[in-house]
Amino acid sequence: MTKPRVLIVGAGFGGLSAARALAHTDADVVVIDRRNYHLFQPLLYQVATAALNPSDIAQPIRSVLRDQANATVLMGRVVGIDRAARTVQLQSGETVPFDWLVLATGARHAYFGKEEWETVAPGLKKIDDATHIRQRVLGAFERAESALDEAARRSLLTFVVVGAGPTGVELAGAIAELARDALAKDFRRIDPTSARVILVDAAPRVLPVFTEALSAKAAAQLLRLGVELKLGAPVSACDLDGVEVAGERISARTVLWAAGVQASAAAKWLGVPGDRAGRVPVGANLHFEEDDRIFVIGDTALALDAAGKALPGIAPVAKQQGAWVGKRIAAAIAQRSSNPPFRYRHIGNLATIGRNAAVADFGWITLSGYPAWVLWGLAHVYFLIGFRNRLSVALSWVWAYLTRQRPARLITGGEG
Amino acid sequence: MTKPRVLIVGAGFGGLSAARALAHTDADVVVIDRRNYHLFQPLLYQVATAALNPSDIAQPIRSVLRDQANATVLMGRVVGIDRAARTVQLQSGETVPFDWLVLATGARHAYFGKEEWETVAPGLKKIDDATHIRQRVLGAFERAESALDEAARRSLLTFVVVGAGPTGVELAGAIAELARDALAKDFRRIDPTSARVILVDAAPRVLPVFTEALSAKAAAQLLRLGVELKLGAPVSACDLDGVEVAGERISARTVLWAAGVQASAAAKWLGVPGDRAGRVPVGANLHFEEDDRIFVIGDTALALDAAGKALPGIAPVAKQQGAWVGKRIAAAIAQRSSNPPFRYRHIGNLATIGRNAAVADFGWITLSGYPAWVLWGLAHVYFLIGFRNRLSVALSWVWAYLTRQRPARLITGGEG
Repeated sequence: MTKPRVLIVGAGFGGLSAARALAHTDADVVVIDRRNYHLFQPLLYQVATAALNPSDIAQPIRSVLRDQANATVLMGRVVGIDRAARTVQLQSGETVPFDWLVLATGARHAYFGKEEWETVAPGLKKIDDATHIRQRVLGAFERAESALDEAARRSLLTFVVVGAGPTGVELAGAIAELARDALAKDFRRIDPTSARVILVDAAPRVLPVFTEALSAKAAAQLLRLGVELKLGAPVSACDLDGVEVAGERISARTVLWAAGVQASAAAKWLGVPGDRAGRVPVGANLHFEEDDRIFVIGDTALALDAAGKALPGIAPVAKQQGAWVGKRIAAAIAQRSSNPPFRYRHIGNLATIGRNAAVADFGWITLSGYPAWVLWGLAHVYFLIGFRNRLSVALSWVWAYLTRQRPARLITGGEG
Repeated sequence: MTKPRVLIVGAGFGGLSAARALAHTDADVVVIDRRNYHLFQPLLYQVATAALNPSDIAQPIRSVLRDQANATVLMGRVVGIDRAARTVQLQSGETVPFDWLVLATGARHAYFGKEEWETVAPGLKKIDDATHIRQRVLGAFERAESALDEAARRSLLTFVVVGAGPTGVELAGAIAELARDALAKDFRRIDPTSARVILVDAAPRVLPVFTEALSAKAAAQLLRLGVELKLGAPVSACDLDGVEVAGERISARTVLWAAGVQASAAAKWLGVPGDRAGRVPVGANLHFEEDDRIFVIGDTALALDAAGKALPGIAPVAKQQGAWVGKRIAAAIAQRSSNPPFRYRHIGNLATIGRNAAVADFGWITLSGYPAWVLWGLAHVYFLIGFRNRLSVALSWVWAYLTRQRPARLITGGEG
């Protein structure tokens, strides 16, 4: 008798937790991802701002699952699901059968119907996005040094970040620090410390998932780093010369997008409409409504909490859902009784702004400034997969703290 | 009175030494490079084989020259030289005037008139080449794991390296180790240790710059790592399915090129023919024959030693030439008497093959195996620019030695 096959698509936080929860199950666990590595997305902005190397926050999926004997990893791109035949189609033409399917394919950035802005204002979801943004940001300083007139120089030294959620705040803070610390003495014709970093959002305050008091503290810390805030007004135009916000034209050669997300194509594969952000609605048992052997988790799923509010697209939700689904499938295979319906356990929210600057909200306690920043650092090193990555990131941070330098200041990709 | 301007094109070993030798000269030193970083090319093969990160062997040119107050760095691509007007044209349209010009623009790989092989068999000169080769090599193992038939699998697990000079030997050895150590336990359907690595060269022995005895030792060390040698026969065909060597067809989906170099376009800019490898002939004073204020150094120059033999395209030659040219220009600017004509001082040859395997020849002593390997490691860490890079590379190596893992196993670039 062949073993039941659990097919997991996507090796992000959700997919990997599901795979691990199935380690001791008598099943054939197959993990498919279109990349060969698991990415620790919360630190991606540090790659984009030259503080970390791509490999510091990425770990080969095969290494992660090396010692899990029942797990096979395949690198491939899913293009469709045949629910009747219980197979997944890959772009390579291969068809992979399954008994249980876990869709954990994440999300990418979205432009609210203005998809043409993507070429102008890159978003940050993949390693290649991060190296592209790094290239754009560092390249802007280089071109400013060669710029022939003052207007061009000003425009090159103006950085607009759209979206004041955690990613936008982190990006804006990190670019401001890059300009004020790491690059300060490296140019002769421009003064990098004169660079403007402008954080724009249609919402009236930064980090809206935090309390108003912490939002205000985060805003104060951003201002202290020299970031300008333009809140309460949406971006109405975006092109190669800058953006328009509330009727005002901001001339900026670098615009970065951190404003919206769009779930992966899982809804399309399943033949259902999905919500506005493309997510597949799931109930408390996290399965696709028409098939209780197809689970959807993480950023791809629209799951509601007890109060009927959508769970946020953050790592802890994906991880807890993955672990829960893994247990659920393990119980079904072993013909044990199922675990109780999924309930998300919220630990807290953490966001960093820059050196010694962060906010943390655990419900029972809130922190800001230095203590929140240290906590943020410890938590992120702790959650990184792989001891070498932990060590490398920790050493990079200690080094950066002491020297104020950036180790990964490379403009790569797309060279002739 | 404006200061005389020394324009240095290229921030490799030659260009940077020239710039540094001018640190205390009353001149305006401008360094132009099309990249923002100095690359430590001797370790590029380690990036290509996932042992190091790009940023470990690259240092922003601006950081290197930060404390040299008379130096300005410009990122730009030179497209021509106007010798009469004493200006250099950049692709951006900018024109940069000079009083003294140092051309240190290096070389790239060449295909002996078979330039169409480049798309099939990538070479290794730039960071992007290295990440591309890393993508190809790691991707081949991934595709082998999904391959549907045995012939395709064999072809995916066969790696051909063309050229048995230092780069080819290092690449072949590193790929063999990658397959036998780091990847050994990570796959379920294929056995990475069964991968074939074939080193091909038209010359009858590996590392021809070394003595026959050391060549033989290097060959023995390669065989011990499992590398197959096909020497004394040129590659007669090269396509996506493999190569043909001495009438024999080798089916291989990954072919890497380490066989030839071609100097940069400096000869074309100067309007002279250049030698077969595109190098500009220079005399003992290292200047372009028609203009003693235009110097050509490093891989771009054809300079002869006392015996009339061309100096090799290696880092020590470029560094010594750069330092000599810098001194020469400094003397001219200060109206001091010139330094005596350039003479290359050869220290020795070092090449590594793999873990505990290397060869070294200092004339008065030759070493191989473990002692040569340790010496190679120390020398390369010592010559790396930037303390952080030294530390990072040293730690990466200690880590890799202890765990046999590769820290940078990422397939990036060109994702959808």
